[in-house]
Amino acid sequence: MGTLRIPDMVPSPTEDCQTLVTSFKGLGTNEKSVISVLGHRNASQRKKIRETYQQLYNKSLVDDIYSELSGDFRKAVVLWTYEPFERDARLANEALKSRKKTITQLQVIVEIACASSPDHLVAVREAYCGLFNRSLEEDITANVPMPVQKVLIGLVRSYRYDKQLVDPSIANAEAAILREAIRTKQLDFDNFLIILSTRNVHQLRATFECYKKNYGFSIDQDIKSCGKGLLESILKVVIWCIDSPEKHFAEVVRASVVGLGTDEDSLTRAIVTRAEVDMMKVRGEYFIANKTSLDNAVIDDTSGDYRKFLMTLLGAKV
Amino acid sequence: MGTLRIPDMVPSPTEDCQTLVTSFKGLGTNEKSVISVLGHRNASQRKKIRETYQQLYNKSLVDDIYSELSGDFRKAVVLWTYEPFERDARLANEALKSRKKTITQLQVIVEIACASSPDHLVAVREAYCGLFNRSLEEDITANVPMPVQKVLIGLVRSYRYDKQLVDPSIANAEAAILREAIRTKQLDFDNFLIILSTRNVHQLRATFECYKKNYGFSIDQDIKSCGKGLLESILKVVIWCIDSPEKHFAEVVRASVVGLGTDEDSLTRAIVTRAEVDMMKVRGEYFIANKTSLDNAVIDDTSGDYRKFLMTLLGAKV
Repeated sequence: MGTLRIPDMVPSPTEDCQTLVTSFKGLGTNEKSVISVLGHRNASQRKKIRETYQQLYNKSLVDDIYSELSGDFRKAVVLWTYEPFERDARLANEALKSRKKTITQLQVIVEIACASSPDHLVAVREAYCGLFNRSLEEDITANVPMPVQKVLIGLVRSYRYDKQLVDPSIANAEAAILREAIRTKQLDFDNFLIILSTRNVHQLRATFECYKKNYGFSIDQDIKSCGKGLLESILKVVIWCIDSPEKHFAEVVRASVVGLGTDEDSLTRAIVTRAEVDMMKVRGEYFIANKTSLDNAVIDDTSGDYRKFLMTLLGAKV
Repeated sequence: MGTLRIPDMVPSPTEDCQTLVTSFKGLGTNEKSVISVLGHRNASQRKKIRETYQQLYNKSLVDDIYSELSGDFRKAVVLWTYEPFERDARLANEALKSRKKTITQLQVIVEIACASSPDHLVAVREAYCGLFNRSLEEDITANVPMPVQKVLIGLVRSYRYDKQLVDPSIANAEAAILREAIRTKQLDFDNFLIILSTRNVHQLRATFECYKKNYGFSIDQDIKSCGKGLLESILKVVIWCIDSPEKHFAEVVRASVVGLGTDEDSLTRAIVTRAEVDMMKVRGEYFIANKTSLDNAVIDDTSGDYRKFLMTLLGAKV
């Protein structure tokens, strides 16, 4: 369940567009008004607003937001306004273009591949080709070294069966294959990656449970004991995104606010991509792991319109 | 260009359905009438006929064809009547279920992955999940031994960029990677397979051309010299399906009619899947390779309504 709040009476897309265009008028921008409209509309409502805006004013809403807002607030509103598959294609591209390619950047690709539906993943790949004139896989190949490249390519190409169908004997047999690869530290072993990238998530969760039962430690703990490299970090994110995406995104929020300074890009991404998916659960997992509230963490680490927008997506009345 | 002939004045889907249901009435079936309708309609017209039939008579056209016709004729008309992505999902499943898994069966999967559009391939994977309650990749994993498994999984998961965009420096660099893998007989080398399964077909054709120019032999000839196993055979089909699908399908037809007996399944598949795609070119390639006509080969090796149906798809007046 998401945290996004939609009013009982939603204005028509035309009314929303008029509110937006009015808030852009003149020298300043009425940020409050932008938040009050876009921060309370779901993906299909935002799509209609984008389309209506284009028809009414013959220009792109995203472009206007881009030129009217600034900073982290702008980045958050722009990401929120894109069609979700276009947003994710752009996030993946940004991760692959970034100079640093640590787990902070590359985990974005794992999230798209493992914590969203098969149809969404395909739509992201299609959008990627349309936006950047090459496939997502080609950019992974060009920008990520082996063996992480191989893991990411396997994952973004998955099209998992989307229903709850679990075979306990497969869970048992494949837990053993995973275990053997981890024991011998062959984390890029073909069969290991094929299991993680072809099985449906329900089957994989059963396999991970089997793993823990049969071998004493959870699979992510065992992977961690193989080393502290990028490969191990990526695989840990893979396991979490499959096993419990809400736990993963709670961790993304935590890592983004911990210590001095804030990683706004990660914080924005976590909230924007999950606000209408499972943010209620993310909030719960955050509390279990950190014994403090996710909302307070956001309030403490952000300010101004950026804070107001994120808090709006988190369901607060601002 | 296909060979399918559609009349200038196409009856409405309702009229076509009435003709079909009349031809099914009584003890026998009017096969001529079935051929005269379905053998002259393209994919979108057949789709409307299927939908209208379901609405008018509350039963499935494919089921009725199945119970009214028989033998190879039935198999051909049923395949032709399915939605193309459902047809290919069923063909892939049949190949994976078959007791023998030689190149004759497994090449079907390469054709779907390499000789059709990215969107068609995704639609096949989606249909496969819906029809068989597991993903195509899971069935490949369960039914095909390594290393061919790895090749097929890589290919069916591709989503290639779909426009003509060629980088000559990539062609040169990747021809060298392909060459090195072939020279050292490492045909399941990760980089080798990633190139074949991520690059767009136009880029790959340029790479193959570069290969021939730089190393003297065409890449499929060089692969052949690595051995006569299933892996080499599959990779040859991959190269042909990417480089020139019409040459590949001409070869499928030739192999299906050569010697005593006929491989009706392969012959049917080649004609049904390419009749409205590129059968004109397939016919041309067949003539170049065999100095005889594809149409005569079909006439010589088939008979009865099956022959009439295939010849209708080949554009003959029967």
